[in-house]
Amino acid sequence: MPGAESIVSFRVRYSETDQMGTYYNSRPLEWFEMGRTDFLRNIGMPYAGIEKKGVLLPVIEAHLEYRGRARYDDALKLITTATMVGRARIRFDVRIVHADSGAEIVRGYTIHAFADLSGKPIRPPAGFVEAL
Amino acid sequence: MPGAESIVSFRVRYSETDQMGTYYNSRPLEWFEMGRTDFLRNIGMPYAGIEKKGVLLPVIEAHLEYRGRARYDDALKLITTATMVGRARIRFDVRIVHADSGAEIVRGYTIHAFADLSGKPIRPPAGFVEAL
Amino acid sequence: MPGAESIVSFRVRYSETDQMGTYYNSRPLEWFEMGRTDFLRNIGMPYAGIEKKGVLLPVIEAHLEYRGRARYDDALKLITTATMVGRARIRFDVRIVHADSGAEIVRGYTIHAFADLSGKPIRPPAGFVEAL
Amino acid sequence: MPGAESIVSFRVRYSETDQMGTYYNSRPLEWFEMGRTDFLRNIGMPYAGIEKKGVLLPVIEAHLEYRGRARYDDALKLITTATMVGRARIRFDVRIVHADSGAEIVRGYTIHAFADLSGKPIRPPAGFVEAL
Repeated sequence: MPGAESIVSFRVRYSETDQMGTYYNSRPLEWFEMGRTDFLRNIGMPYAGIEKKGVLLPVIEAHLEYRGRARYDDALKLITTATMVGRARIRFDVRIVHADSGAEIVRGYTIHAFADLSGKPIRPPAGFVEAL
Repeated sequence: MPGAESIVSFRVRYSETDQMGTYYNSRPLEWFEMGRTDFLRNIGMPYAGIEKKGVLLPVIEAHLEYRGRARYDDALKLITTATMVGRARIRFDVRIVHADSGAEIVRGYTIHAFADLSGKPIRPPAGFVEAL
Repeated sequence: MPGAESIVSFRVRYSETDQMGTYYNSRPLEWFEMGRTDFLRNIGMPYAGIEKKGVLLPVIEAHLEYRGRARYDDALKLITTATMVGRARIRFDVRIVHADSGAEIVRGYTIHAFADLSGKPIRPPAGFVEAL
Repeated sequence: MPGAESIVSFRVRYSETDQMGTYYNSRPLEWFEMGRTDFLRNIGMPYAGIEKKGVLLPVIEAHLEYRGRARYDDALKLITTATMVGRARIRFDVRIVHADSGAEIVRGYTIHAFADLSGKPIRPPAGFVEAL
């Protein structure tokens, strides 16, 4: 049974390019976050709401493979899926492709702990794992 | 009697360039903030300490004039001065120049309110105006 | 006869917040750029195309008034209009408001020169002023 | 025989924090780049000069482990080393620690290809491997 998937369409901002003429290498981590935001909203667990309940999702690991260029104003598609890693961690897998050709630009993942406001590891909020 | 002045030396990061080959237009506001941080430390009122006392300095107005290009790894100099605007606002005037030639890159200012954690305007912390 | 207007809807990214809990003060300049991109596409003069013809639009002046807070994931609306300033400059006026309440967050403008790849001022591309 | 090592001291900018009160997760990639810039300058192969000769070093892989928090204005230390990966790739290993306590904040690496302006893989510039 396949899990939930989020697809976000967006365009590369000029501010996200660098003098090499393509996106700067840290931008995909900001795009990954758009994917997580959309994913969590889609499963009925918007992150803004999670934080208001005192649960944070700090990133503890990130991995990126840069596969292709994307230029200013290129239309991209961000595909995000998620799985629990043990009982108190979640992993988001992300692919970013050109919206028209499907050519891959970046793939990677981030792993997040569930933590309280002091940074202490905690369990996911009630209903989270089921929603996933 | 001239007021305090801060001078910060730094280099343009690759992440701060864009495909035009010079710094992206929002970066100077991030550089201005380095200048404020240094300025406030110099007068014995480090901003991290001010915030810990519950006093914020949100920007309420910013103005920038872009005078010249600066490329990746260029050595720049950031000169910051400050003056009170009435009793509860402060204005930082900033110039950014090439470290070697002195050629101007950006000049501008930001105006900040003193506010408490709820955003309500307040007076500067004790000793602040005197330190200035 | 009113000129063209662009309206872009977007949400505040987590990466755009700072520890004050609202958007960092340089982010609106990045949002302004999204507005310009959309505006120029709407009038049939997409900026990516303009640059390919060797015409750049570097910012020469920017002004921002910060009017209200916007938090992570807040839905915002960016309204952009434009007017020529003399024969070789263009000014974009921007307002950013909360999508639901209409409460204003930022207003400001940027002024841009038309320049060739060497940075020399030039006239707008053929048809630009008419399209505007 | 140990290789070259670069150490860069810097402070966390306010613009690099997010509403969680620590650095945003994409910022370390921007700091890693400061480390590479310094490392390459130290071995007599400044990256700005390499690019002028038509050699680019696009990132093809990045990995980050987030080990600890760092707040606005915290003094950090960035340690960078590098090794060739085969004949046409270079890997930079990076650790970021608190300047005073030495407590680790982030560790990770980036792998880069040597490429010409069209993106085609090429060998490192003459003298590069020896300088390393």
